[in-house]
Amino acid sequence: MTRVAVVGAAGRMGKALIEACAQVEGLTLSVATEHPASSLIGADAGEVAGIGKNGVIIAPTLDEAANDFDVLIDFTRPEPCLLHLNWCVAKGKKMVIGTTGFDDAGKAAIAKAAQQIGVVFAPNMSVGVNLCLKLLDMAARVLGDSVDIEIVEAHHRHKVDAPSGTALRMGEVVANALGRDLKECAVYGREGVTGERERQTIGFATVRAGDVVGDHTVMFADIGERVEITHKASSRMTFAKGAVRAAAWLQDKNTGLFDMQDVLGLK
Amino acid sequence: MTRVAVVGAAGRMGKALIEACAQVEGLTLSVATEHPASSLIGADAGEVAGIGKNGVIIAPTLDEAANDFDVLIDFTRPEPCLLHLNWCVAKGKKMVIGTTGFDDAGKAAIAKAAQQIGVVFAPNMSVGVNLCLKLLDMAARVLGDSVDIEIVEAHHRHKVDAPSGTALRMGEVVANALGRDLKECAVYGREGVTGERERQTIGFATVRAGDVVGDHTVMFADIGERVEITHKASSRMTFAKGAVRAAAWLQDKNTGLFDMQDVLGLK
Amino acid sequence: MTRVAVVGAAGRMGKALIEACAQVEGLTLSVATEHPASSLIGADAGEVAGIGKNGVIIAPTLDEAANDFDVLIDFTRPEPCLLHLNWCVAKGKKMVIGTTGFDDAGKAAIAKAAQQIGVVFAPNMSVGVNLCLKLLDMAARVLGDSVDIEIVEAHHRHKVDAPSGTALRMGEVVANALGRDLKECAVYGREGVTGERERQTIGFATVRAGDVVGDHTVMFADIGERVEITHKASSRMTFAKGAVRAAAWLQDKNTGLFDMQDVLGLK
Amino acid sequence: MTRVAVVGAAGRMGKALIEACAQVEGLTLSVATEHPASSLIGADAGEVAGIGKNGVIIAPTLDEAANDFDVLIDFTRPEPCLLHLNWCVAKGKKMVIGTTGFDDAGKAAIAKAAQQIGVVFAPNMSVGVNLCLKLLDMAARVLGDSVDIEIVEAHHRHKVDAPSGTALRMGEVVANALGRDLKECAVYGREGVTGERERQTIGFATVRAGDVVGDHTVMFADIGERVEITHKASSRMTFAKGAVRAAAWLQDKNTGLFDMQDVLGLK
Repeated sequence: MTRVAVVGAAGRMGKALIEACAQVEGLTLSVATEHPASSLIGADAGEVAGIGKNGVIIAPTLDEAANDFDVLIDFTRPEPCLLHLNWCVAKGKKMVIGTTGFDDAGKAAIAKAAQQIGVVFAPNMSVGVNLCLKLLDMAARVLGDSVDIEIVEAHHRHKVDAPSGTALRMGEVVANALGRDLKECAVYGREGVTGERERQTIGFATVRAGDVVGDHTVMFADIGERVEITHKASSRMTFAKGAVRAAAWLQDKNTGLFDMQDVLGLK
Repeated sequence: MTRVAVVGAAGRMGKALIEACAQVEGLTLSVATEHPASSLIGADAGEVAGIGKNGVIIAPTLDEAANDFDVLIDFTRPEPCLLHLNWCVAKGKKMVIGTTGFDDAGKAAIAKAAQQIGVVFAPNMSVGVNLCLKLLDMAARVLGDSVDIEIVEAHHRHKVDAPSGTALRMGEVVANALGRDLKECAVYGREGVTGERERQTIGFATVRAGDVVGDHTVMFADIGERVEITHKASSRMTFAKGAVRAAAWLQDKNTGLFDMQDVLGLK
Repeated sequence: MTRVAVVGAAGRMGKALIEACAQVEGLTLSVATEHPASSLIGADAGEVAGIGKNGVIIAPTLDEAANDFDVLIDFTRPEPCLLHLNWCVAKGKKMVIGTTGFDDAGKAAIAKAAQQIGVVFAPNMSVGVNLCLKLLDMAARVLGDSVDIEIVEAHHRHKVDAPSGTALRMGEVVANALGRDLKECAVYGREGVTGERERQTIGFATVRAGDVVGDHTVMFADIGERVEITHKASSRMTFAKGAVRAAAWLQDKNTGLFDMQDVLGLK
Repeated sequence: MTRVAVVGAAGRMGKALIEACAQVEGLTLSVATEHPASSLIGADAGEVAGIGKNGVIIAPTLDEAANDFDVLIDFTRPEPCLLHLNWCVAKGKKMVIGTTGFDDAGKAAIAKAAQQIGVVFAPNMSVGVNLCLKLLDMAARVLGDSVDIEIVEAHHRHKVDAPSGTALRMGEVVANALGRDLKECAVYGREGVTGERERQTIGFATVRAGDVVGDHTVMFADIGERVEITHKASSRMTFAKGAVRAAAWLQDKNTGLFDMQDVLGLK
């Protein structure tokens, strides 16, 4: 039974991780921390997460909990994450890192730490997204150049960039499978007299609306039929469950740097 | 029982009109013509349309059929359509005109003819599209400025302009209902760092793929919920059935110029 | 500025109501309570709701707050709700009641109370669902008997009944508009040799999957086109925002029993 | 350049095959036949198919055309198809057979003929459907038992059975990948108090509406995300293009019985 620690337990991602630990078998949440200034220090982590009391009290630091867990899950920011990384190396704890935004020095620090502890580090921990990338590669190879490929993505009104990183990654996978360069074949909008569609292009259509967590559809359209591969994230639980699945998968990995393709056996 | 004539009977739209006449009650196809050079003159119109023999033989001209029908349905091009219009005025026949691309002189000729015969003239004869415009107006008024509005449309690879005229018309209806000017609030593509969505904008996302006849979805998205109004055309039958419904509706209109909002009672 | 009190503030619906109060203009959250046994008494309501501190401290009872709010929003259970109702009548506070499951005596108590205070009472407070019912009525009247009508709904894996109450209500609205009796024309599943579809039927297709909050699509399908009206709930925020909109709408209603159709001006 | 003959050229499937031959490279239509009683004997096959004249005149029999083609594509009925099969063996022509409804003797005759000529024989020639079956197998193996699986299919109002054969085949592929028996885990409708969803079940939801050619979506839904694999047929062209692709693929296969998985390299 892998014992998991969650930092930032009262944040939105922290709550999702606490809930995910309760859903996945072979794992248990044993430690939860939050910033010392939070009014929720001392509260029950399950109650804060909205899943009912689970007996884990939110603490202001990891320091007293070094013997109480096996894997730390970190979705914070680069600076605190690197402090946690050093602490984990010192204490011999494994890590699942879903934090994003590291500079090259940060990434190098993670790689070096992974020589001493097992680390899963991935910018998108969603099981479904990682599966879809594999399905897209296969679909593109079978359908080839006779189909039109369009990627439609929708996200909430607060997202500041377009298309999403995941949509672009999907485009790269498809372009690579067909021997195209996404930079040369991507179309990001259509307005006015565009002329007929050029088959080699990959179109992106972007919707920004309401509270959509993240929808992606890749459409392969021929005359007479189309195939669509869709991923819909409905909550941070998609990342939380992937992270927890990664934590369980780390059980027999004492050292090494892994990503979600490793965890899912898709390599 | 209204008797209908179809010109251009072996074209794609002509075939759809022949099929639509067989589906709508209170109407019968009695005359069908095609260009004299066609190899299908003398063939059975139903067989050409793929619905089995219906006993109407494709003729090279309307001239012999003046006593055999009540309403002419015309989805051709402006020049032949105006010739048919003159012929119908001379013979006292009504017309349903789905032909597009008239210049101002052509439109004036139609209006003048409508003083002598009943005419339904509409750029989009689809019952569903005309209904949707009404639903969009109502939805926009109830949901107001708290929602994000996005219009997603998809058409086949051969379409040369974007967004579709129907998508733009939908945008205008919604903008008018909310007191906005579509020219100022429309967004036709998103790429790079766009910043958070501005509530007042109306976004258009355009898909060009395969043989999609024409899909339109207008999304009203709030935090917690969204309402979508969707129209999907699956074939020219959407226009054919609207035209045939218009032909039947003309039965008791001896003169006058009408559009599909009149036919559907949505005014 | 209407001041709102929320009971059950640390529950899932309570958190959504706290968040909704922060999003709607003309309103402010001023009071929040939770069960005295909760570990969250004394915590900041905004922090518990995950939207950052808002300065409202979660209290164990309404009793000290009688001068601090104007409208109570209650999504609890019938027994505590009726206690709150008595308290509000005694103190001259208005109520928005989204609680469900009242027996006839409970409903009668609400109606009686509404002679003294303003009350909005509705089983489904979603603005979008109430709008959709109106759109469905209009669409059915225009499209009439030439279309096939199908209702597809999806809900999470824990839902124990099918189709959803909302799907059935949508079916009733459509059936009424067409002069049909839903009991006689509803089809709840298809298996084996069913024969061709009878036009008069209204089909229900039910999906139970994952964490889908609640999707409903009503499809009006003809030959050549279809119109779809879709509602997607993405979170309890759909009900929370409707309730908060109702609270603001109550401002100038000193007495009377209202539902969401009143609030939205759809009657 | 493979030369193709199409029988039943004026039927709906025949027209689609004629159009598909014009779209696929490396192939040309050289022979087209129709029943001797048709009014379209002697007409231009391209004109009948609505794609403009292609110079192939519709003939009443294959007999004069034995030197004019390499592969016969047959989407007729079992009895005429078996006559064509004998003729092709005698003349050394290859066949693509999309005809369905053969009894065991018919299937045995096809297998025997394939010892002398190359034959592609498949009940569903759609490239997309055959690809989707492969994607479904992979998705089910990665997502495993933590997801709810639901299959939603829609077909036109004239379809007499439910769920579709393709939907059932998709269910079998998924069930096999997960070690389940579809007969034991399939759910074909939900009505009334059903209780919570059992994870092991595979749900089918069936829509019958308008002129939907054939839509299939398989949904894998977890808490936090879902993956959907969708196939949408928009016309007989999906089968026509697969058949034509099979005809081209047969070029270097002098004998042997193949299916679409062979043609697509998915085995």
